[in-house]
Amino acid sequence: MNRQSRLSALDLKDIKIEGAFFGGCLELIRKLAIPYQWEALNDRIEGVEKSHCLENFRAVAGLTDDSFHGMVFQDTDISKWLEGAAYSLETKADPELEALCDQAIELIVGAQGSDGYLNTYYTLVEPEGRFTNLREGHELYNAGHLIEAAVAYHNATGKDALLQAAVRLVDYIDGRLGREPGKLRGYPGHPEIELALFRLYRATGEERFLRLACYFIDERGREPYYFDIESEKRGNTRIFPESIHFDRKYFQTHLPVREQRSAEGHAVRAMYLYSAMADVACETGDEELLSACRALFDNIVSRRMYLTGSIGSAELGERFTCDYDLPSDAGYSETCASIGLMMFANRMLSIDRKGMYGDIVETALYNTVLAGMARDGKSFFYVNPLEVWPEACEKNPNRRHVKPRRQGWFGVACCPPNIVRTVTSIGQYIYAHEDSSLYINQYISSSARMVFGGADVSLRMKTEYPFDGLVSLTLDCPSPAEFDVFLRIPAWAEKFSVEINSTKIAGNAADGYFRIGHTWGRSDSITVSFEMKPCFVIANPMLRADIGKLAIRRGPLVYCLEQADNGENLHEIAVLESALLVSAFEPNLLGGTVSVSFTGYRLKPGRESAPLYSVLDDRSKPEYLPCTLKAIPYFLWANRGLGEMSVWIRTL
Amino acid sequence: MNRQSRLSALDLKDIKIEGAFFGGCLELIRKLAIPYQWEALNDRIEGVEKSHCLENFRAVAGLTDDSFHGMVFQDTDISKWLEGAAYSLETKADPELEALCDQAIELIVGAQGSDGYLNTYYTLVEPEGRFTNLREGHELYNAGHLIEAAVAYHNATGKDALLQAAVRLVDYIDGRLGREPGKLRGYPGHPEIELALFRLYRATGEERFLRLACYFIDERGREPYYFDIESEKRGNTRIFPESIHFDRKYFQTHLPVREQRSAEGHAVRAMYLYSAMADVACETGDEELLSACRALFDNIVSRRMYLTGSIGSAELGERFTCDYDLPSDAGYSETCASIGLMMFANRMLSIDRKGMYGDIVETALYNTVLAGMARDGKSFFYVNPLEVWPEACEKNPNRRHVKPRRQGWFGVACCPPNIVRTVTSIGQYIYAHEDSSLYINQYISSSARMVFGGADVSLRMKTEYPFDGLVSLTLDCPSPAEFDVFLRIPAWAEKFSVEINSTKIAGNAADGYFRIGHTWGRSDSITVSFEMKPCFVIANPMLRADIGKLAIRRGPLVYCLEQADNGENLHEIAVLESALLVSAFEPNLLGGTVSVSFTGYRLKPGRESAPLYSVLDDRSKPEYLPCTLKAIPYFLWANRGLGEMSVWIRTL
Repeated sequence: MNRQSRLSALDLKDIKIEGAFFGGCLELIRKLAIPYQWEALNDRIEGVEKSHCLENFRAVAGLTDDSFHGMVFQDTDISKWLEGAAYSLETKADPELEALCDQAIELIVGAQGSDGYLNTYYTLVEPEGRFTNLREGHELYNAGHLIEAAVAYHNATGKDALLQAAVRLVDYIDGRLGREPGKLRGYPGHPEIELALFRLYRATGEERFLRLACYFIDERGREPYYFDIESEKRGNTRIFPESIHFDRKYFQTHLPVREQRSAEGHAVRAMYLYSAMADVACETGDEELLSACRALFDNIVSRRMYLTGSIGSAELGERFTCDYDLPSDAGYSETCASIGLMMFANRMLSIDRKGMYGDIVETALYNTVLAGMARDGKSFFYVNPLEVWPEACEKNPNRRHVKPRRQGWFGVACCPPNIVRTVTSIGQYIYAHEDSSLYINQYISSSARMVFGGADVSLRMKTEYPFDGLVSLTLDCPSPAEFDVFLRIPAWAEKFSVEINSTKIAGNAADGYFRIGHTWGRSDSITVSFEMKPCFVIANPMLRADIGKLAIRRGPLVYCLEQADNGENLHEIAVLESALLVSAFEPNLLGGTVSVSFTGYRLKPGRESAPLYSVLDDRSKPEYLPCTLKAIPYFLWANRGLGEMSVWIRTL
Repeated sequence: MNRQSRLSALDLKDIKIEGAFFGGCLELIRKLAIPYQWEALNDRIEGVEKSHCLENFRAVAGLTDDSFHGMVFQDTDISKWLEGAAYSLETKADPELEALCDQAIELIVGAQGSDGYLNTYYTLVEPEGRFTNLREGHELYNAGHLIEAAVAYHNATGKDALLQAAVRLVDYIDGRLGREPGKLRGYPGHPEIELALFRLYRATGEERFLRLACYFIDERGREPYYFDIESEKRGNTRIFPESIHFDRKYFQTHLPVREQRSAEGHAVRAMYLYSAMADVACETGDEELLSACRALFDNIVSRRMYLTGSIGSAELGERFTCDYDLPSDAGYSETCASIGLMMFANRMLSIDRKGMYGDIVETALYNTVLAGMARDGKSFFYVNPLEVWPEACEKNPNRRHVKPRRQGWFGVACCPPNIVRTVTSIGQYIYAHEDSSLYINQYISSSARMVFGGADVSLRMKTEYPFDGLVSLTLDCPSPAEFDVFLRIPAWAEKFSVEINSTKIAGNAADGYFRIGHTWGRSDSITVSFEMKPCFVIANPMLRADIGKLAIRRGPLVYCLEQADNGENLHEIAVLESALLVSAFEPNLLGGTVSVSFTGYRLKPGRESAPLYSVLDDRSKPEYLPCTLKAIPYFLWANRGLGEMSVWIRTL
């Protein structure tokens, strides 16, 4: 098997995010979210659940008399925060933030044993229990996030204290787990270390990290079943009593991974696993594993993904369920799972060079991931429903996971720092390149520097995306450089035009990209214009929850009806397929956004006092009156107080 | 406050259930269900969950070395079985069954302490824990079912061993709980003893039982909150860890009961409580309490009840949630809760003498309660959904409570014996009387004897109800007797006619009853004919789950579409409001039943392979083709293998 080529991302330090949309978002995260989350990790925020994360490291260091608090995976909170802070530092120096990072790293490194082991839960609570419960114990998951933070911080600052600690920890793990005699043939209950090991391999060039990642991926789901073996060995004790209900699919261990064809189980675990599978498959030229990745991706996007790019249809197990089971009001749609989907899709894009993967990155990013954070940067959604009736969320315990308001912090606080690390590293999704090809995958205002065949290239992208489809690129090559620019043409863009230096050029997109071959000089310009008109979207008829309904999309944005614009009882609203959708930029709406207005129908009032059930007759027959409705981008919902929301609208 | 009059039921021994419908059902229960459940209670059925119920009594008696197994309320399984067996014995002698009952009673009585206390869990497991956890411990719930069994068995056989044990137990309880100094001011977490105490009071005439029932009802929900007091006292230990999530509404303790106006919490608990409230309110002439009962009843039937007469919208807490929250595919709709609703409605009927209460008894009985048992009498539904997609029930853990197949037994086996005791005592719902009025509340083939003003009256009712609306009554009074016969005219019966001795008599129904004053002699006949034509039913527009949908009803029966008749993907089916519904008796369908056929529409096939989401255009626009559809009575669903089912049908 030979290594396959793939596109490379630019280094984050070579990209500057600009413009109001992501530039503003990044500013919010730098000024507000990162400092806020540092306070939260230090248990200094009043009125929200305590993290205990740093306190646990202090306890290991003997700096407090306290014992362990929180979940077995509590260590990851600081790792994810560090990773996000590192990306921020990589693009913008901030000595104060760097000092906080160094302080955190000192604590973490100080908690490492002389043998390299590093985990506050097992060190404080179960020192004899290391690697006895890989199914539930999250040791390798914790290690994975630590490795990611270490690689990111080393990239950003050149400092290697955490990287060395990570390598020592991996060496310890490598010495205990594997196929060699005397080692445990285990693998993590929660995948994450696989993709982290791949990053470590790329950062250090050391093949042993790739080999260990391959081992974890390949060993997963084989017989005899390791999680049963370790369970029996330790007398079947459990960390999470409820995990007795979790089947093999929950852990993606129902089959060896290369035999898996449908996305199963806990959605975040699945995304992290598939991302690593893609990395490893490409690096090792493993076509069989790559086929599995393609099949899994296809299963997700053609049968198991919400219109908003969210995944996971059930709260219990936070998981995939079965094809076409996508309830709007009771699904899970975790923010982290959509971040994972972006990660998986971006890897597949770099391998297969197809625009459809970029479309999924775009869908997940502009709808679910951005919806995960409030406009003030201080509150977050874990669950991103497509329909909300606040009273039922409050009073029906089976919908208690669906929150109609974003929350300040969580006992399991994976989503807030995950959003931070995604936005601070958003540059990795914009540009990609190989040999003499430059791919523009996401349309985000930014400037970038790169080197093509020894020639320096500066590039600047300006756009009001996702609200407007005009994108201007200027390239500046001090010495002429010949290379291809590939522009992703989103599937939603039925019409688009491309100009070079104000001259329109003809051509079609292939595999989702429009290719422009050119010898670029000083101040060349590319202008792409995507027609962004609002349209109705209809679901595949197998999708029961959405049958007889339509949704609204404009460009990359999925729209929703909110009570704030349309009154309560959104379910009484219906629409004709022929309705004309009119979009308008409203500078005073939600910080400036494009709304979509149309004529719909509302049930004639007066029947609310009728009996619960009536015989259908002329009196009880529903009558509808025309009304004007307004939809807003889904990612902006729940920023104007408590109210109903719905993405799908019934047709008349 | 003065006692109010209420209708009396006839003694069960004076009623003989006949005809194929309920006569056949009763035979099935006598021959099959009662012996089967006896075996189950003795842990002698292979392949189903063990009951341990009688084994626990044997352990208390020292007959085995074993300790307690099962739930804290396991004792009730034998009580409910005994109660059902007693009703069977009351209407049909069966020495073999009586011998089994006596054997069970000997075991139960043998487990009673010398102080009168009787409960296998607390005797075997927590002898010091009596009455320390009324919130979760179910001691008073167990006592309630024991009392009900004792009263029923005494009525049936005249034997009083169990009745004496019940009285001793109540005396013990009375000595420990109450407002008097030195007593605990507690009340049960699970209501049941209140209505049982009322039955004991009626059976014995002893006022102290009524007083204790009144105390439990009135003390409930007062401040200071008793369940907090007892919890603190015992150091906040728990029997059911998950019960920490149960709020006061779950226990109907959020307000003093007479201030409650909406049906809240665990649906079975609510029904048992409200039934007792009605009993006590009437007996004591407590108008305030009666108003609460009327308001609670109205809240259920006008806002919180499924079309099938089932209640409880959420699995977690098996409970009411909020007005109009009635999801078809994820509700709870427990069989026992509909039995409880029948009990509550029948009490309200006897107090208010309004036919609408009988309508609810009928709706719950012929739809949900009968659906609870398979046609073979051996398997049961706990949950009675209005829409089932078997694959999602299996693969979406949040729907795991919705079973597409009836089951043989349950770890918590409340429903099977509850169906048995309901069917064996169905006579209590048919006739009611006072002074010179005879009420015919349910139309069930039967013969009955009664005494009116000293005159013997024999009565025979023949009908093919619920499949046909013709009911023939013959009365035989050896000496002429003048009294009124009140015939319940169901709200669904838009047209009906009444004849006496083949002469049509004019008149209207008032309060849901048609009154016939007459001097009855030898062989008078009454013929009532209700027009039973199938019709569409529409839900109140506030009921989100059913908006834009119709259901089919014919007479008392709600219909459903099953995959067996209509193929899979029932969600792709739609109907026009103008569709003509045609009913036909099909002798070979499900043992002989009336089906309803009509022309509907099915989505044109071919779009199943489309992308998950498409822009609405001429190609993606849904097209429908006409098709013939067949609906069957809901209570007969899931008797022909695994498949989809739906009560509500989308309109085009």
